[in-house]
Amino acid sequence: MSALPIGVFDSGIGGLTVLKALMARLPEENFIYLGDTARLPYGTKTAQTVERYALQAVDALTRRGVKAIVIACNTASAAALPALKAAHPDLPVIGVIEPGAQAAVAATGTGHIAVLATEGTVRDGAYQREILKRMTQAKVTTVAATLLVALAEEGWIDGEVATATVRRYLAPLLASEQAVPDVLVLGCTHFPPLAQVIQHVAGSLRIVDSAVTTAEALAQLLSARALVAPAGNRGMVRFLVTDGQDRFIRVGPVFLARVIAPAEVERIDL
Amino acid sequence: MSALPIGVFDSGIGGLTVLKALMARLPEENFIYLGDTARLPYGTKTAQTVERYALQAVDALTRRGVKAIVIACNTASAAALPALKAAHPDLPVIGVIEPGAQAAVAATGTGHIAVLATEGTVRDGAYQREILKRMTQAKVTTVAATLLVALAEEGWIDGEVATATVRRYLAPLLASEQAVPDVLVLGCTHFPPLAQVIQHVAGSLRIVDSAVTTAEALAQLLSARALVAPAGNRGMVRFLVTDGQDRFIRVGPVFLARVIAPAEVERIDL
Repeated sequence: MSALPIGVFDSGIGGLTVLKALMARLPEENFIYLGDTARLPYGTKTAQTVERYALQAVDALTRRGVKAIVIACNTASAAALPALKAAHPDLPVIGVIEPGAQAAVAATGTGHIAVLATEGTVRDGAYQREILKRMTQAKVTTVAATLLVALAEEGWIDGEVATATVRRYLAPLLASEQAVPDVLVLGCTHFPPLAQVIQHVAGSLRIVDSAVTTAEALAQLLSARALVAPAGNRGMVRFLVTDGQDRFIRVGPVFLARVIAPAEVERIDL
Repeated sequence: MSALPIGVFDSGIGGLTVLKALMARLPEENFIYLGDTARLPYGTKTAQTVERYALQAVDALTRRGVKAIVIACNTASAAALPALKAAHPDLPVIGVIEPGAQAAVAATGTGHIAVLATEGTVRDGAYQREILKRMTQAKVTTVAATLLVALAEEGWIDGEVATATVRRYLAPLLASEQAVPDVLVLGCTHFPPLAQVIQHVAGSLRIVDSAVTTAEALAQLLSARALVAPAGNRGMVRFLVTDGQDRFIRVGPVFLARVIAPAEVERIDL
């Protein structure tokens, strides 16, 4: 069992930022990454549709044999985590929102936390719920920043367009001096490549990226359940996508920060 | 038969720019608009996937009874028109690319035509083929401008971000004075709301929007096949979407230039 790979599910390409953090924290583990590139983006879809898609994707991963599942997509974590846990009661399933909320609460001094996310994640309110569970007096401000997804996929992660876009999304947050939050959660896996521009525009705000805390949560979970890979295992990864291998290979490195070889990528139907 | 509505299929919301032109040219006709909002965008998907989705969507329209089909989506017109015509030999099916190519050829003086489109449409090369069929010595330059789709859906159709984005996409086109085209085809239905910014950046380039020429092509086709609506008919429209009625109602008016009432919109599965 412990020799099995860890399944990582994402709506497409952005989850590679989470995979990158998982591989860095757990270099001895094997991973299967499934990106539902045929049906991305999830961020503008309804919760019911996202839940249905996530159940199909996780079925595809469990059929291949996995010892744990990471839902790398914020939108799917928000919409589908309860349904996924109910459908797979014996399999550890973790999302990115609880670790992100935990990191935000640990980082804030004033208790005012901002969350930058997709429309779907903002509408669902999962970050607010998870932050307030841990810090009842917290103030949470959410900003739907849909355009940043397309910006990161285009690889325009710096320069005039990226700066102007981030500035426009953050302007209401930064407008009033009293109400400015002290922590900004990157609540979408597409956003870490834009972290430098966001930090530049956001000034003194502390940026929290849930990928690192999710990797830590997974490491603890594997350890607690005696699922750590056998000693000496050299971690491997393979990629499953539902459409567009060429685009995945071309755009993926923006998020994974390493080259993806064509032989590593397989197209599947869900 | 002539009393039946016209089916208009699009990957989502952008096709409403085509519907707007159709309703203006043919105010006496009834329309059913189907937007595959659950699976948009098509522009970054492979041709095989787009063809499969388009066949499903047109099946859903023909089951409801239609006298003609307009494929409002450039990507679907490029990838699926032959398959759709083969699957429905008795039904008039028209796309937006042939009318767009025709309008571009009519508008150019120098024979150098630029096409601004999604990745999928650019990769497919359908505009080049259709333009070269009509003007063998034409020079066609294509630009994949994926980000403009998200920009229009966000409603950011003017201002700093829109201008900087358009400028970045058009910069290579406008860089060399000798090689500058004289016509720019808006090869994606999402782009007409950005036409003013594009015109501002593109300077003297003449902008061609295929929606109007597609409406003219449909009018001629209905006339030739004796399918014009009975005299005195007052055109009606209803909308089918595969996900997110709320978003469709909120974002749609950017493209249709009129309010969409909740009662007009129905969610269906494909």
